[in-house]
Amino acid sequence: MNPEIDRRAFRDLSYGLYIVTSKDEDRMNGQIVNTVIQVTSDPPRVAVIINKKNLTHEYISKSKVFAVSVLDESAPMKFFGPFGFRSGRDIDKFEKTTYKEGVTGCPMVTEHALSTLEAEVVDQIDLGTHTIFIGDTVSSEVLKSGRPLTYRYYHEELKGKSPPAAPTYTPPE
Amino acid sequence: MNPEIDRRAFRDLSYGLYIVTSKDEDRMNGQIVNTVIQVTSDPPRVAVIINKKNLTHEYISKSKVFAVSVLDESAPMKFFGPFGFRSGRDIDKFEKTTYKEGVTGCPMVTEHALSTLEAEVVDQIDLGTHTIFIGDTVSSEVLKSGRPLTYRYYHEELKGKSPPAAPTYTPPE
Repeated sequence: MNPEIDRRAFRDLSYGLYIVTSKDEDRMNGQIVNTVIQVTSDPPRVAVIINKKNLTHEYISKSKVFAVSVLDESAPMKFFGPFGFRSGRDIDKFEKTTYKEGVTGCPMVTEHALSTLEAEVVDQIDLGTHTIFIGDTVSSEVLKSGRPLTYRYYHEELKGKSPPAAPTYTPPE
Repeated sequence: MNPEIDRRAFRDLSYGLYIVTSKDEDRMNGQIVNTVIQVTSDPPRVAVIINKKNLTHEYISKSKVFAVSVLDESAPMKFFGPFGFRSGRDIDKFEKTTYKEGVTGCPMVTEHALSTLEAEVVDQIDLGTHTIFIGDTVSSEVLKSGRPLTYRYYHEELKGKSPPAAPTYTPPE
């Protein structure tokens, strides 16, 4: 590592926490993501960053659609197990949560979610370990009011960890 | 606008607030940005999104370097005037703040900043009104500890507004 880089500086960047889902024909998958942002206002475009090793990456690459659920502070730690630390190759992540199908066919998790949106991929960049997918929003909905769950709240209040596949993972020193 | 899109859903996405700067030979400029994220851990890459109309966009496009200062909650509203709502074509934005020059030559604002980082652009995507610049981090430093300023805090506590050039701007309905 470049000695000019102090990784602690990256911890000062702010993020929310989201479940990003996609589908591959009749199969579906989703995962916890902290890197969802709106990138333009007109049209309303969003970007998500997904690790290439993740099943959700495979599904978005094929189907060119994804959905986002904005989590709120009511989400308990056990909620993060299947979506954050297990692979859809091994378990059915949707077995123990509530969701509805969007216009894109993607499952949108409604449990512990303030709002949902869906997008069609219009561009992407290969970032090395990850891909950034840029999507045109095709639907969005507010489910309830509340406090969005932030990455900081997840770490400081819920004492949550980040898996090595996260773009913001900090390796042990 | 697509009637399936409720723009209020976008307000649930979380962001920090940053000053992104760049240079063009001996000229320098910077602006407030809410869309700075880390996109990969190895190597530590960051992305910033800048409106094409902004002078900072012109400078990053030419010099291929940018710097980021992570703002903290100590930043008063008057701090946001020059960097958020004025153009570097009209005023010297650095006249009333403290900064230091980074290894890339970019000015890094140190006032009301928790940490700084600098990056060299390795890729970019044309998003329409905005460009996303992807950069390899070449230096980063923690200046002090404190609470990062969030976009939510800026809106709710400081009663700040977003200019129309922001990717998260909400048009009047």
